[in-house]
Amino acid sequence: MIQKPSIPKGTRDFGQKEMAARNYIFDTIRSVFKSFGYAQIETPAMENLSTLLGKYGEEGDKLLYRILNSGDAFAGVDFEKPLAGQVCEKGLRYDLTVPFARFVVQHQGELSFPFKRFQIQPVWRADRPQKGRYREFYQCDVDAIGSRSQMCELELVQIVERVFSLLGVRVCMHINNRKLLTGLAEICGCPDKVVDITVAIDKLEKVGLEAVEAELTSKGLSAEALGKLRPVLQLSGTFEEKISVMRGLMAGSPAGMLGLDELEELFGYIRAAGVQMPCELDLSLARGLNYYTGAIFEVKALDWQIGSICGGGRYDNLTGIFGLPDMSGVGVSFGADRIYDVLVGLEKFPAGLASGADLLFANMGRSEAAYVLPVAAALRAAGLSVEIYPDSSKLKKQFDYCDRKGIPFISICGADEAASGTVQIKNLSTGEQRSFGSGDVAEMVAFVK
Amino acid sequence: MIQKPSIPKGTRDFGQKEMAARNYIFDTIRSVFKSFGYAQIETPAMENLSTLLGKYGEEGDKLLYRILNSGDAFAGVDFEKPLAGQVCEKGLRYDLTVPFARFVVQHQGELSFPFKRFQIQPVWRADRPQKGRYREFYQCDVDAIGSRSQMCELELVQIVERVFSLLGVRVCMHINNRKLLTGLAEICGCPDKVVDITVAIDKLEKVGLEAVEAELTSKGLSAEALGKLRPVLQLSGTFEEKISVMRGLMAGSPAGMLGLDELEELFGYIRAAGVQMPCELDLSLARGLNYYTGAIFEVKALDWQIGSICGGGRYDNLTGIFGLPDMSGVGVSFGADRIYDVLVGLEKFPAGLASGADLLFANMGRSEAAYVLPVAAALRAAGLSVEIYPDSSKLKKQFDYCDRKGIPFISICGADEAASGTVQIKNLSTGEQRSFGSGDVAEMVAFVK
Repeated sequence: MIQKPSIPKGTRDFGQKEMAARNYIFDTIRSVFKSFGYAQIETPAMENLSTLLGKYGEEGDKLLYRILNSGDAFAGVDFEKPLAGQVCEKGLRYDLTVPFARFVVQHQGELSFPFKRFQIQPVWRADRPQKGRYREFYQCDVDAIGSRSQMCELELVQIVERVFSLLGVRVCMHINNRKLLTGLAEICGCPDKVVDITVAIDKLEKVGLEAVEAELTSKGLSAEALGKLRPVLQLSGTFEEKISVMRGLMAGSPAGMLGLDELEELFGYIRAAGVQMPCELDLSLARGLNYYTGAIFEVKALDWQIGSICGGGRYDNLTGIFGLPDMSGVGVSFGADRIYDVLVGLEKFPAGLASGADLLFANMGRSEAAYVLPVAAALRAAGLSVEIYPDSSKLKKQFDYCDRKGIPFISICGADEAASGTVQIKNLSTGEQRSFGSGDVAEMVAFVK
Repeated sequence: MIQKPSIPKGTRDFGQKEMAARNYIFDTIRSVFKSFGYAQIETPAMENLSTLLGKYGEEGDKLLYRILNSGDAFAGVDFEKPLAGQVCEKGLRYDLTVPFARFVVQHQGELSFPFKRFQIQPVWRADRPQKGRYREFYQCDVDAIGSRSQMCELELVQIVERVFSLLGVRVCMHINNRKLLTGLAEICGCPDKVVDITVAIDKLEKVGLEAVEAELTSKGLSAEALGKLRPVLQLSGTFEEKISVMRGLMAGSPAGMLGLDELEELFGYIRAAGVQMPCELDLSLARGLNYYTGAIFEVKALDWQIGSICGGGRYDNLTGIFGLPDMSGVGVSFGADRIYDVLVGLEKFPAGLASGADLLFANMGRSEAAYVLPVAAALRAAGLSVEIYPDSSKLKKQFDYCDRKGIPFISICGADEAASGTVQIKNLSTGEQRSFGSGDVAEMVAFVK
């Protein structure tokens, strides 16, 4: 039976061109992470469900891919009880943060703290696929754990600046501090509503002030509380002006004041380090995840509309659930897929990324091919990428192959060349053709490179 | 509730050191693949089970990891029928060959044939974990599809030679041709027993001639048939001697004669190309997989006992199951985990692979840190990997951090340096210390590099 082949919805194949473009992004990000002394790690695609469940909220739990136990998963199952929990012990990782926390706790004895790691791996979410949202996608995470210093936040700001500067994308970094949100809840008189307030504010840009206020009213915030919140969400001006207004508002909230201290320290470092990328204090920035406790970040492209292309923040309690309390960390995650879309949109990918071989030796028959084999081997050893057409097909077909694969040089060596020990190489774009001795490796490399 | 963190049996975390070593292997292999004009692709971790099932034999089907359908997987299930098939539509890829075949068929309109691709990705198998066998491991596959020329086989031989030469590992490549096995079955008078014979011969090295013969007897081979098989399995001598004996034996088998022709062509190319790696015609080499139809390969390290570290072969029918007949291809797969073990065993990893930052700026307080920030940024822009210790901890702690992370240089800039605009850098292994102006970037780089 012949099957029409397809891949699961929300997943993708990457061909040569996409791979080259994606590797360009990953290589750029990796080189910047390394220049700040971060160490690369990898964790398994499968984690125990006990590690994953309950870390992403109820909605997140539903979006976890669960893996059927191997062997006879249904042997001994109690069909009266929920089945998924009985037949699956493992799931695919949903992000890189929880596996990182698990890694830190599991390997704490082997690590040097502050521990600075990066991780570039795919994650899986059983989300409804739509344009720009996939069920398998790469995350590029960089985190420092084991220090409360705002120097760590600064380092992330510098990393973001450097990555997007290398990629040629103008961005703005939006910065807030989760402690200010705690402070807001306190001055609103509803300190128990931090999460409701955070979740609502997180939607500000998408749905507007009115809808956010309606949501907060439905959560039980009084008109008075909303009145106190409103000026903060509409605050504008320079960093100093915003901080000064906030200092007045937050006077009664120790958490809020601490948040302002942290922000002032971070922005001081940003100035001292000579960061050129615009960094904006954005008091409406909340980010949905509950585990942030300090600085929060989001990065937007200035010249391309696509939402956040990088984001993160500080978390004080991430490793606590795995038995290691008082480990404060901070990190950001680069969204490779959106960055890819931005680079395509702005035409910022360098030319020639997906180039294949430098040179094709045409195949003129078995003994002629044998003649060029050692020449091709020597050129490869000298750094060229060289193909030999495997079959002695018609020359037109071999030229077409060069054309379709973008191979810029062809060498046609027949019986005459083999007899005289020469190699003809032709530049397919200019038509220039030159003859070399079969041992003139350096000269051939110079012609082709 | 505090959970003791762990990862699923048979999976691994990779820390900085292992990552650096693994990336060294992957980067080496990738560079060689590219120098022969192969294009990198990636396919999703999840494939439809319809793509995977029935491709790896009954045993392989059992070893597939199946993914529970998202949403309520058990809604509408018929509990009278087998459940696994009803609640799982997707599985994790088991190898890179079947996804490659699926990719070729699905994207045939966009590809240039012969299509030469490589793929370096993890695969998953619900195998019993044991030393050196994991449930998640990387494969590095390189294949050319769309040509029957033995030039493709040669290219794989050259790739193997180049990879292990770069890695500094002496290897021997064992080569056979599946058509000879067909021929053997024919001259034994049991052409329907090719698979039984192949499977039995595949175990020759592991269990010995006697056990192989016992297995074949149990499969119904007569003593006479075994008698015809035995000299072939015990054949020795040079390539020419072996071929000559085989020509005599195979005279009655067209398949066998074709296999000998292919081998002679391939070994002719190997000689012509100047391959230095030992390549041995190994008539006992069978390889377990049923889909090979021509050349088969296995690579063994000469100085380290570990079994095959690379293997593959030619398959004529791989894409037929997906609706694309008559596509012949050939490929090999490098076993990264075993190669890693060999490099560890032979101490062939280059020194300094896992080195972290080049230089640490000690943190002497907030304003002193602010002073070094632009210096550190300039050094990074000049190509150094530079850390600043995030906290103004005791100097001993900061020195210890350098020591544990192997950072070879430290800079301690206090109020005096900030006032005078200078930077002190100390070589921690020699004790040499030098003073620079804060703008002497090139001089600092030269001292540290």
